[in-house]
Amino acid sequence: MELTVYLAGQIHDNWRDKVKQIAQAKNLPLTFVSPQTNHDRSDDIGEAILGEQPGALYKDDAASDVNNFRTQVLMQKADIVIALFGEKYKQWNTAMDASTAIAMNKPTILIRPTSLIHPLKELSNKANVTVETVEQALEVIAYIYE
Amino acid sequence: MELTVYLAGQIHDNWRDKVKQIAQAKNLPLTFVSPQTNHDRSDDIGEAILGEQPGALYKDDAASDVNNFRTQVLMQKADIVIALFGEKYKQWNTAMDASTAIAMNKPTILIRPTSLIHPLKELSNKANVTVETVEQALEVIAYIYE
Amino acid sequence: MELTVYLAGQIHDNWRDKVKQIAQAKNLPLTFVSPQTNHDRSDDIGEAILGEQPGALYKDDAASDVNNFRTQVLMQKADIVIALFGEKYKQWNTAMDASTAIAMNKPTILIRPTSLIHPLKELSNKANVTVETVEQALEVIAYIYE
Amino acid sequence: MELTVYLAGQIHDNWRDKVKQIAQAKNLPLTFVSPQTNHDRSDDIGEAILGEQPGALYKDDAASDVNNFRTQVLMQKADIVIALFGEKYKQWNTAMDASTAIAMNKPTILIRPTSLIHPLKELSNKANVTVETVEQALEVIAYIYE
Amino acid sequence: MELTVYLAGQIHDNWRDKVKQIAQAKNLPLTFVSPQTNHDRSDDIGEAILGEQPGALYKDDAASDVNNFRTQVLMQKADIVIALFGEKYKQWNTAMDASTAIAMNKPTILIRPTSLIHPLKELSNKANVTVETVEQALEVIAYIYE
Amino acid sequence: MELTVYLAGQIHDNWRDKVKQIAQAKNLPLTFVSPQTNHDRSDDIGEAILGEQPGALYKDDAASDVNNFRTQVLMQKADIVIALFGEKYKQWNTAMDASTAIAMNKPTILIRPTSLIHPLKELSNKANVTVETVEQALEVIAYIYE
Amino acid sequence: MELTVYLAGQIHDNWRDKVKQIAQAKNLPLTFVSPQTNHDRSDDIGEAILGEQPGALYKDDAASDVNNFRTQVLMQKADIVIALFGEKYKQWNTAMDASTAIAMNKPTILIRPTSLIHPLKELSNKANVTVETVEQALEVIAYIYE
Amino acid sequence: MELTVYLAGQIHDNWRDKVKQIAQAKNLPLTFVSPQTNHDRSDDIGEAILGEQPGALYKDDAASDVNNFRTQVLMQKADIVIALFGEKYKQWNTAMDASTAIAMNKPTILIRPTSLIHPLKELSNKANVTVETVEQALEVIAYIYE
Repeated sequence: MELTVYLAGQIHDNWRDKVKQIAQAKNLPLTFVSPQTNHDRSDDIGEAILGEQPGALYKDDAASDVNNFRTQVLMQKADIVIALFGEKYKQWNTAMDASTAIAMNKPTILIRPTSLIHPLKELSNKANVTVETVEQALEVIAYIYE
Repeated sequence: MELTVYLAGQIHDNWRDKVKQIAQAKNLPLTFVSPQTNHDRSDDIGEAILGEQPGALYKDDAASDVNNFRTQVLMQKADIVIALFGEKYKQWNTAMDASTAIAMNKPTILIRPTSLIHPLKELSNKANVTVETVEQALEVIAYIYE
Repeated sequence: MELTVYLAGQIHDNWRDKVKQIAQAKNLPLTFVSPQTNHDRSDDIGEAILGEQPGALYKDDAASDVNNFRTQVLMQKADIVIALFGEKYKQWNTAMDASTAIAMNKPTILIRPTSLIHPLKELSNKANVTVETVEQALEVIAYIYE
Repeated sequence: MELTVYLAGQIHDNWRDKVKQIAQAKNLPLTFVSPQTNHDRSDDIGEAILGEQPGALYKDDAASDVNNFRTQVLMQKADIVIALFGEKYKQWNTAMDASTAIAMNKPTILIRPTSLIHPLKELSNKANVTVETVEQALEVIAYIYE
Repeated sequence: MELTVYLAGQIHDNWRDKVKQIAQAKNLPLTFVSPQTNHDRSDDIGEAILGEQPGALYKDDAASDVNNFRTQVLMQKADIVIALFGEKYKQWNTAMDASTAIAMNKPTILIRPTSLIHPLKELSNKANVTVETVEQALEVIAYIYE
Repeated sequence: MELTVYLAGQIHDNWRDKVKQIAQAKNLPLTFVSPQTNHDRSDDIGEAILGEQPGALYKDDAASDVNNFRTQVLMQKADIVIALFGEKYKQWNTAMDASTAIAMNKPTILIRPTSLIHPLKELSNKANVTVETVEQALEVIAYIYE
Repeated sequence: MELTVYLAGQIHDNWRDKVKQIAQAKNLPLTFVSPQTNHDRSDDIGEAILGEQPGALYKDDAASDVNNFRTQVLMQKADIVIALFGEKYKQWNTAMDASTAIAMNKPTILIRPTSLIHPLKELSNKANVTVETVEQALEVIAYIYE
Repeated sequence: MELTVYLAGQIHDNWRDKVKQIAQAKNLPLTFVSPQTNHDRSDDIGEAILGEQPGALYKDDAASDVNNFRTQVLMQKADIVIALFGEKYKQWNTAMDASTAIAMNKPTILIRPTSLIHPLKELSNKANVTVETVEQALEVIAYIYE
């Protein structure tokens, strides 16, 4: 049974590559999808398509049109959502994607360091499973195939 | 037409009182509901009901059971959701409540300072309206009654 | 049994007043809701709340945020939708509101002159009932109370 | 990841061919579906199947039965909807298809010339992305595959 | 707890009056709604509102527009549906209303004589409860209030 | 685009074979599913699996458990429903299947002889298209592929 | 804000009276609904309405028709579900009602003794909150009104 | 037509193997999925992934996070659910899975011995079909392919 996994979370390091390597090492038949991981591209995509906007607010709104379009297409295709929180950045998109996934009844795994237990406690409580590492998240998915 | 408004957002100052005063001044027939606004009570509610838990993680999980129960009951009763972001705190519950409301097709107003335009751009784009002050949020609601 | 009726359609004449007078004459226990019928107010509401925008596109987008918010709140409260098309104007909001109502399973009455039979044929086919006058639309609703 | 795209909009020029050519040039794995693009066939399909009807209204209603059946089947299969508005024609079917798609949570791209910014402002505001050219619409979809 | 009950079924005798009398005798806080029970009015309502149609098919289609509109409004308001089948007539509207109610998760009671056990067996199997008399149907509803 | 078509209706003649032959002649990529068409098997399936039941009512209820199970599985897989009514039999299962399909937003074609226009008028009005012959029904589906 | 609470669980002692007394003592504006709590009445209701059945299986099926009808009506009206498990009895109806409530997104509180932690662990994990006493369950609900 | 079948029920004997053998003998194109059938693994999976927990309650809650995640993924993929009850064990997970499946409109077959007719009567009444043996359950599914 092939499953599609949406990888929500920050785009400042290569954690998604690590997820894919572990999945491959475990021979899990997973397809991964995710938001745009090139940060500049993500910020600039609105103007790249629609042309220059009259200020930061409008540039951001144009970019988010396209980013939200992408996320909606891919999350509707996903069977599972993994949302990773790190110690840096506000990560409101991660919270938004995880919350949306849960409201859509997508089985959802939260990854967060122990330092974030308290501020993420309500979201963690709504997710199916909360773990601390990407290895653990893949163990949760691998369990489906046992 | 009476409407119920859920007020999501930080619980560190009295912004909800201000919302209610403006609504009263405008004679809007609104009922307001919200998360627990006593911060200590919110953190302690799990242990207050279930007794001492074996560590911070478990205390937090017990508290979030009860907080999420409350939010689910009240948000299902709400016709409108206002979600306020301020410059301090991680505010992941605010992001979670706003995202859940949007996924439930609840008409949603985001309030955020201009300093947060960029990090909130995707959530702002999904909300119906984004404003900067509680006064503006109430103007949006008052417009329904014109 | 009290019913709420959303009156979608152009805001250039007083057809909604006529609807209300007929309903009153027939003693129908109906509450009517509608989009903003003051055309200038509708166009200006975004800037009225958010301040001046950098051009027509942005002014329009700000206004439509608030107009769509209002429509979503009121249509979710409506038991019935009446959508009136006249011979003038593009009336894409009327088509949008009628289509949205039908997709939400709201019982929907279309009012259109015979001159518009052809261009409205698919939308008319999806609506529950299509009539030519507001009198007829109220007769359809009055039939519920027979 | 193969995606199906419904192309709503006028059927008076070959804009859909242009969409397909660009998609092919970009090597996007897309399947395109659309309403009947032969205008006469679309108008006559009711009588072609059911025989002559007693007047224009009935001919139109018979045709729209079959056209709406086709649209419902194909839109339920679509992952994405593109709706193109041009400067001519009433295009109420385009507004109907776009609004229905949005109500069904289908990610939706609106294409419209700048001359239509104002009359389409509310529908544009509800769509995920609004662009001015088919090239831009395909750039939005191509972004999913980056 | 007040409940609204939709009474689907033939309109050739006064079984609905009997239902109401029993409910009153039992002091059940029920509101009853139903299709148009004046048979001629039900058949003629399309032409009564829209004017003469060009033949029986078109007269019937116009009438059913209005009858289906009424049923949709009232069934959406109903908490419970009773559908009564008798030994005469085709009663396809009764089957349609009962099936629609079941698909909408409306708790549904079927009343049918023993002579119809076999032809109604699949519909009876999908309904919550099948009984043979209106008295029994009201006993089922009265049980809610015990 | 392959589509699955559920063929609801009487099981006393071979109309489904005719549907399949026409589809094959037209080269339509359709898969057909249907209720059990062996009438005795359909009536006896409950006792065939569960053993003898204590009377006709219980035999019928056991059979309809299995028949409804089959229909639910297959209709959930269907993209389109064709429901055929003939002049004989009560055909309440056909009315039930068509009504359920419509309530599930399955695009639905009704086939009925002109003699049944009046008693089927409300159900016909809710279906997408009503035709008189299986040939016409297949023309409606073929139109999707034009 | 008045809320309706469905009290699922065994009907062998008066725990529901205790719930009501505590709610009254706390002045909570709650309406309580529940399954039939007279055990014999619950077992006999099918035959009481439909007459003697040909054996225990059929008597039970007739009773459960009426009991499930009652539960469906009342649970659809409920804002909150409390499900109480005790140490005796199989209590599969309690598990069924709690699971159905959770699948319907009804906020759900589980009450169970510590002796049942292990066998109820998956259901407890899906409920919003799990407590050990009716007092605690009412504290959870009272928290909504703080 | 390939179908996926979720096999809910106790994990203390090899009844699932028997199901698969019968399906193979009948040449049914079925894919079977199920909960974790290694009982110790199921109980320990939480600690296996997350590390030691501070007591039995927390170990159980961690395990059920992962077990519920697995069930949600697999049940969403299932076209049919079989739920088997035996004479031993509390089997609340079986009741939970069957009830959830029914609430999700998954066609559901219950297998239970005659000794459990009474305590399972309401759940049995909500399932599509209730049988006594795995052979019978497969006969029900085989009937789809006749």
